[in-house]
Amino acid sequence: MQISSFVAPQRVLMGPGPSDVPQRILDALARPTIGHLDPRFIELMDEIKALLKYAFQTENALTLPVSAPGSAGMEACFANLLEPGDKAVVAVNGVFGKRMIENVQRCGATAVAVDQPWGEPVDPAAVEQVLAAHPDAKVLAFVHAETSTGALSDAETLCALAKRHNCLSIVDTVTSLGGVPLYVDRWKADAVYSGTQKCLSCTPGLSPVTFSDAAVAAIKARKTPVQSWFLDMNLILGYWGQGGKRAYHHTAPVNALYGLHEALVALKEEGLENAWLRHASMHQALAAGLEALGMRFVVKAGARLPQLNSVYIPEGVDDAQARAFLLSKYNLEIGAGLGDFAGKVWRIGLMGHSARRENIELLINALADAFAEQGKTVDAQAALAAVAGSL
Amino acid sequence: MQISSFVAPQRVLMGPGPSDVPQRILDALARPTIGHLDPRFIELMDEIKALLKYAFQTENALTLPVSAPGSAGMEACFANLLEPGDKAVVAVNGVFGKRMIENVQRCGATAVAVDQPWGEPVDPAAVEQVLAAHPDAKVLAFVHAETSTGALSDAETLCALAKRHNCLSIVDTVTSLGGVPLYVDRWKADAVYSGTQKCLSCTPGLSPVTFSDAAVAAIKARKTPVQSWFLDMNLILGYWGQGGKRAYHHTAPVNALYGLHEALVALKEEGLENAWLRHASMHQALAAGLEALGMRFVVKAGARLPQLNSVYIPEGVDDAQARAFLLSKYNLEIGAGLGDFAGKVWRIGLMGHSARRENIELLINALADAFAEQGKTVDAQAALAAVAGSL
Repeated sequence: MQISSFVAPQRVLMGPGPSDVPQRILDALARPTIGHLDPRFIELMDEIKALLKYAFQTENALTLPVSAPGSAGMEACFANLLEPGDKAVVAVNGVFGKRMIENVQRCGATAVAVDQPWGEPVDPAAVEQVLAAHPDAKVLAFVHAETSTGALSDAETLCALAKRHNCLSIVDTVTSLGGVPLYVDRWKADAVYSGTQKCLSCTPGLSPVTFSDAAVAAIKARKTPVQSWFLDMNLILGYWGQGGKRAYHHTAPVNALYGLHEALVALKEEGLENAWLRHASMHQALAAGLEALGMRFVVKAGARLPQLNSVYIPEGVDDAQARAFLLSKYNLEIGAGLGDFAGKVWRIGLMGHSARRENIELLINALADAFAEQGKTVDAQAALAAVAGSL
Repeated sequence: MQISSFVAPQRVLMGPGPSDVPQRILDALARPTIGHLDPRFIELMDEIKALLKYAFQTENALTLPVSAPGSAGMEACFANLLEPGDKAVVAVNGVFGKRMIENVQRCGATAVAVDQPWGEPVDPAAVEQVLAAHPDAKVLAFVHAETSTGALSDAETLCALAKRHNCLSIVDTVTSLGGVPLYVDRWKADAVYSGTQKCLSCTPGLSPVTFSDAAVAAIKARKTPVQSWFLDMNLILGYWGQGGKRAYHHTAPVNALYGLHEALVALKEEGLENAWLRHASMHQALAAGLEALGMRFVVKAGARLPQLNSVYIPEGVDDAQARAFLLSKYNLEIGAGLGDFAGKVWRIGLMGHSARRENIELLINALADAFAEQGKTVDAQAALAAVAGSL
């Protein structure tokens, strides 16, 4: 088998993540590797923590990137807060809520699902009913921004419900961080995890997390050790602890952290609120264009994630053929439907650096061409005019 | 807090890892990010698997990089093979053997430690005695190359012992892969994990693993689910499965995998046996130089890891002061002692791209200078001559 260096194609990433990674972040990845105990690296870690606190809008001392993808961040939250025999109420309105149930069960805890229709935000009334029926629940878990459907849930109300019922909240913000308003402290969220490859426009592989004082107290009060050594926050905190001496835990992914640092510096430069506004306005422009092409959204207006647009695949258009066409002719990636939505829905991402006018215009043109290739004619010029009119 | 882009210093990395990362691998990290379900990315995954099989010298179908550092690879092996109530015999001759015990316990299994002196290889006779006394043991775990001490154990003999006692072997090859002979298939090792930041000279953050058919059968025969969702090999295999359709599990760390691919291509170009020989000959040269400086090795000749040289800190030399001097004046990192060796021992790495003549010469010069700064005079020229004479 003859294998040579990999030549990566230059794609435009408008799927559910990874999103387009700006050159400055790619450049940061390629900086010389230094030791993970180097004093300069310790400074970098401190800066990353400070920048993550800004991104999460929190003063939580335990705020850091887990050295693994978002799924590991999810597991870190569940494995640290739950012990065998505990009970967790989990709102399920898509793939990632389902995954939460899996995580609860693998901790030896009991999951009580609040099943919700896919494509809709979590209904706080339904959650409250279940919380009331399970006063022994320790955790309420939900997904802020469901990447599988594009629905945005009311995290503030759900976190308040958790507090009112003496539960810790676990909040999936993988797709929301940096894309829509998220106030960890103001909302009193307890354990929050995210990913780097969505609205932060960094490469995939790290999972920013933040734990409230209440969550830390729960971890300290555990009767059993955290079942994962790698994800045990007691140990990770010793490694990422403030300044000075650090206890060796694992070898941090040095260059990946260069990238995250640069992505967070870029976010700070733009300003968090400006980033939210950009996502919102680009979403409006995209929606105007897609609707002009005759496409329908899965999620009702008002509950849509600007950064993840789920639309029904138009009748007569073959899913796989159209996506392959976009990729091969336009180097453009959009996302397939997941789970119940497979084959029926496309997920169009406008995350981070991908949330730009030129990406939207490229997509509108490319979709019109893909439809034409399958014999379906649409008016691309009218759709582009709708995009322009919205901006 | 004013934070700007991070400027990484250009270090020479001669500690216990990360090692020097060649420019071609850093360049690979900076290639444009593509989707983790992109057909080109699937090809990349297949190539990485093929290259890892070469590096591990195995035909195991389940050979892939876990999307997290070596500690997670360790946990993946234990969490997949062990169930609550199982028993594992663990040889402990350094920090990483101790960590294995932790992992066994967190799986709800019982660990039987075979405690060995630090700085010595694992004694197969001592292991055999314990295996004979525990016929119900399911696993024998040991570290091939103890990064905390620099001792190389006889993995072939230990794997054979495991088979003779109906145990699966779990072998830590974090520091051995690419640096000393390792034959997974020939030695019949069952679950083997490694890291990228040692003799592969890649950036830290990924953990190559390989599982034998016997190990896979044990995973399939489990009575309980793997307690870690993120590290469940049943699910990971669905994602990394051969060709064609893949089941989404997590988002792979795309750019980190570009780097690993390039590192493995470089290894293939050099040839595995040549890489082993280079590590061995550079070690001889380093040892000649260090001994000419009057330094003593912790590990007896014959059991020394060429890539990790533990030496006693000379009398009258302050550990922290000397290492800080090397770093600030020479941009040169060497490793501190871990655990029982803290403050007494230095760990000098010659891993991967760091195993070069110019690194050795720099180190000898820099050490002589560091000693002089503390009032201890040594003959650097004689030591450099000893290095040259060995090559």
